[in-house]
Amino acid sequence: MSILDNINNPNDLKKIKKEHLPEVASEIRKKIIETVSKTGGHLASSLGAVDLTVALHYVYNSPVDKIIWDVGHQAYAHKILTGRGDKFETLRTHNGISGFPRRSESEHDAFGVGHSSTSISAALGFAAARDLRKENYKVVAVIGDGSMTGGLAFEGLQNAGHLKKDMLVILNDNEMFISQKVGAIAGYFAKLLTVGMVKKAEQKIMKTVSRFHGFGSPFGKLIKRAKVMLFPGMLFEEMGFTYIGPVQGHDISNLENILTNIKDMQGPVLLHVITKKGKGYAHAEENPEKFHGVGKFNVNTGKTAKNEEVTYTQVFSDTLVKLANANDKIVAITAAMPEGTGLDKFAKHFPERYFDVGIAEEHAVTFAAGMAAEGMQPVCAVYSTFMQRALDNIVHDVALQNLPVVFALDRAGLVGEDGGTHHGAFDFSYLNFIPNLIVMAPADENELQHMLKTALNSNKPCALRYPRGAVVGVALDMAPSVLQIGKAKVISEGKDICLLAIGNHVDTCVKAAEMLSERNIKASVVNMRFLKPLDEEIIKEMLSKTKKFITVEENALTGGLGESVKSLLCNTGAVVECIGLPDKFIEHGSQKTLRKKYGLTAENIAETALKML
Amino acid sequence: MSILDNINNPNDLKKIKKEHLPEVASEIRKKIIETVSKTGGHLASSLGAVDLTVALHYVYNSPVDKIIWDVGHQAYAHKILTGRGDKFETLRTHNGISGFPRRSESEHDAFGVGHSSTSISAALGFAAARDLRKENYKVVAVIGDGSMTGGLAFEGLQNAGHLKKDMLVILNDNEMFISQKVGAIAGYFAKLLTVGMVKKAEQKIMKTVSRFHGFGSPFGKLIKRAKVMLFPGMLFEEMGFTYIGPVQGHDISNLENILTNIKDMQGPVLLHVITKKGKGYAHAEENPEKFHGVGKFNVNTGKTAKNEEVTYTQVFSDTLVKLANANDKIVAITAAMPEGTGLDKFAKHFPERYFDVGIAEEHAVTFAAGMAAEGMQPVCAVYSTFMQRALDNIVHDVALQNLPVVFALDRAGLVGEDGGTHHGAFDFSYLNFIPNLIVMAPADENELQHMLKTALNSNKPCALRYPRGAVVGVALDMAPSVLQIGKAKVISEGKDICLLAIGNHVDTCVKAAEMLSERNIKASVVNMRFLKPLDEEIIKEMLSKTKKFITVEENALTGGLGESVKSLLCNTGAVVECIGLPDKFIEHGSQKTLRKKYGLTAENIAETALKML
Repeated sequence: MSILDNINNPNDLKKIKKEHLPEVASEIRKKIIETVSKTGGHLASSLGAVDLTVALHYVYNSPVDKIIWDVGHQAYAHKILTGRGDKFETLRTHNGISGFPRRSESEHDAFGVGHSSTSISAALGFAAARDLRKENYKVVAVIGDGSMTGGLAFEGLQNAGHLKKDMLVILNDNEMFISQKVGAIAGYFAKLLTVGMVKKAEQKIMKTVSRFHGFGSPFGKLIKRAKVMLFPGMLFEEMGFTYIGPVQGHDISNLENILTNIKDMQGPVLLHVITKKGKGYAHAEENPEKFHGVGKFNVNTGKTAKNEEVTYTQVFSDTLVKLANANDKIVAITAAMPEGTGLDKFAKHFPERYFDVGIAEEHAVTFAAGMAAEGMQPVCAVYSTFMQRALDNIVHDVALQNLPVVFALDRAGLVGEDGGTHHGAFDFSYLNFIPNLIVMAPADENELQHMLKTALNSNKPCALRYPRGAVVGVALDMAPSVLQIGKAKVISEGKDICLLAIGNHVDTCVKAAEMLSERNIKASVVNMRFLKPLDEEIIKEMLSKTKKFITVEENALTGGLGESVKSLLCNTGAVVECIGLPDKFIEHGSQKTLRKKYGLTAENIAETALKML
Repeated sequence: MSILDNINNPNDLKKIKKEHLPEVASEIRKKIIETVSKTGGHLASSLGAVDLTVALHYVYNSPVDKIIWDVGHQAYAHKILTGRGDKFETLRTHNGISGFPRRSESEHDAFGVGHSSTSISAALGFAAARDLRKENYKVVAVIGDGSMTGGLAFEGLQNAGHLKKDMLVILNDNEMFISQKVGAIAGYFAKLLTVGMVKKAEQKIMKTVSRFHGFGSPFGKLIKRAKVMLFPGMLFEEMGFTYIGPVQGHDISNLENILTNIKDMQGPVLLHVITKKGKGYAHAEENPEKFHGVGKFNVNTGKTAKNEEVTYTQVFSDTLVKLANANDKIVAITAAMPEGTGLDKFAKHFPERYFDVGIAEEHAVTFAAGMAAEGMQPVCAVYSTFMQRALDNIVHDVALQNLPVVFALDRAGLVGEDGGTHHGAFDFSYLNFIPNLIVMAPADENELQHMLKTALNSNKPCALRYPRGAVVGVALDMAPSVLQIGKAKVISEGKDICLLAIGNHVDTCVKAAEMLSERNIKASVVNMRFLKPLDEEIIKEMLSKTKKFITVEENALTGGLGESVKSLLCNTGAVVECIGLPDKFIEHGSQKTLRKKYGLTAENIAETALKML
């Protein structure tokens, strides 16, 4: 019988003696590692936050007290400690528990999440509501150092410092783990100043002090030492927070002491906790990047199943490097996603022309606009769902000025197990209405390389969206070539019905046409290629053959290809059926499961056609 | 002959003797005041930045050097000094010069703008491009203290500090003007430390020092003084900038000295300049809020034409106060727009329930989501165009969690003289695809009050959009009442054609129907009220009377009401014509001029109907 079996909620945890908490943490780690080795998931972040989570639930009283996780990558231990241990093996599977905190899943998930940098703003909202309602529970936001780079986090910090609400922000810093204890300086938080921190601060101070040649060295040194002792975390202090830390984040007993001590402090407090990604699983500690978001793996060896699939990401990555070899105006920008977007390869080849701006999509786009204004050709690679954050920058900084920035939107359409917060379900809808912008989606990997070349050749703002996962498997032309902008491609012609597809469902439509052909129904298949400008000519040409159309796209039906086609054909007597994502937030599950459920299959397209005929 | 008449570009300015620069500034102020008194415009900010602008163009070499203005409110002097003095009287008029920097208007407008907080990111893009191209011009961003509250500015600062590019950010701080000189401390920038700054810093230090009871008072005082002397602007220093300031911003000679001194400094430099809004025009200095964005006024008296018009903003403002009187769960949030959104009235009545978060739309929305999660009913009032910045927060934090936040989008549709960066042309398009969200637009002020009540009563995420300017002029019902969600209102019934309108063009359609009636054509007019959920039932009912429809909306046609209706009616044999804004960025000009140009008039609707019949 494990100690964890008796813990079904935070109250059970509180019954455990303090000295046994490390055992709890150890069992949680084991459970996380075993589960994620089967389901895949965000392993390294969750392992890093286990001890902190145990300490938090030991000291705070969830769900009365509110713990708000930023991004939610790190919340597996929280899920296990809040009544979801028995369902944990269903993690990220269809109808199983979500990989992220979700209000609908548990009263302990105070605020749902998936995107970064929201926790401080949300926590401040909770704190403000609490005070207005004259309640007095505690509010805690837990945010990683990566998420802290997002402008939203800064806006939240700044407003929290201004409103002076009682709240705790825990900065879960996993980039600068301390392996040795530093204990020379008195004071319970001063003693935790790390060597790294002191060094960094010293450099900064020396830089400043060196401007004052008048000050002698002894005074300078005094100041320096005083500064480090008195003003760590000045950045947060300047914004109105009381800064405490850095604190070692894997010593549960010490964390418990500190949290207990600061629990009743007034005003906004920032506790800086140093953790190690992957903590407690050697393979993940050694290779936290690999184990950030990981598929199935062998627990003993740490080996993941060799993935032989070529992905769209890889083809994008290779093509960009190829094009950049011949064109030194091409620069690449990502928002903390070098591996996910495939720009890591570009970074190796062209370190000078590569910019990772941190989790800062808005800045990524406006920064790209600035470079484009000066003659560079920026390719801004961001996941479809995260680019939602930069809509205004695309509109106001890029499109309005007609600047040639290329947006490479990876993970467009259904992303699978990450679920509702991560599906790239809306990019067609949020891009289609933007004047001057060209919007395209490749039918396969060969078209992807041509489209990237086309975008870079266009001298206009262009967005290019492509799905997560494996390519179709067609042959790649030797060199990328330029497509005619706004021109669709007729794949087959048939008089009975016309299938208009874009992106990864051109192939699905080809298969549907084959199925229909077996029933002696002749379908045209058109690869639309461009959502915008839409090839109205070809659609009208098709109209001379048939009045029946089906559109297929992996995007919300509202604002996508289907609506554009219906709008175009409305007054013609055509009958148009649209297949795409319905007007709801799509749950998590494998791409295959979800595509089947929402009708993005050749079978459903063929059936729809049969009904129309 | 004035001195300004001889200055057609920055090179002419450089020929002026330094001691005559104040005269130049004085003449520029006169020109700005006279022009804006006739055209309206952003007076106070532009007056505040005149001396800084003169110094900048005296020291830097535009257009080779790049000066990037944040927001652009303050750029009138820049326009006058860069060849647009003779056209300055056309400011903000249709076909005249824009109220904001625009790349298409002048090579001296390095980066177009209108929304806030973009300048640092854009400037960093310029600097990065410059270095890649091995050029060596200077890049300067000028940003106000308000704009500095936006998360994008923080993302830009942070990335600039990291990349260490040579660039200058001028923080144009007009909230803490120094009226007296402070000159006790040696050093050209230390001497400019203001009393205000020292006081503020001292408070902060005392707070920190007071935590260390062990330190004696003399040591504390030494530290305090040393800290202030050595580490002003620590926030910027922490982010990798060399901080210089604060500097008095109306002493051109001193500004010229400082700019010359720091022009060749390496790495990112932040120069903190203190200016006074409205400087040089007593009425504006006394009342900078009133003269921020002002209509025509009398130069001598400072009096603006009494505006007897009741605006949608006022009705929103009054209704919200009325509803909040009866419901203490209602809270109001704005992003630095208390007057513009009418929330200033709410703030006076319910200071505890009012939150101005600064120019931080993203935070405003996520903060609202946090409050809604805890049972409050937040009303988040932001201009339509600025809410583009918070799309992801609406999707990810509000709609996905189905939290009852009400978005009150003022300035929806054509805003007039502020032009392309400010038209609320896209809100229907960027809201329509969001699951769970209710989207509505009132036909008149009476419906506005009902819709606000409806939204607050719905317990769902709702967006409500209404135009800038005067209401229709209908009687207000005594009390706001709840409308049925998703239910349109038939205003008149006719068999020949059906006019489907939403928002401020319901009235236009009523007038068009009257015109048609004179020609014996019977038109139905339907006030759709809700873009989402769309009242499909009533449209189908109308279809039983006529196959001819016209939709009218003041939004981009792509993704708005028209496309929704066409999608609905596509397979029915109906003929639908859509009137709305075309797929381009709309220029500046009066609302009336633009509505006429883009066919949002009763005449055009009637003509369109005649063509269809």
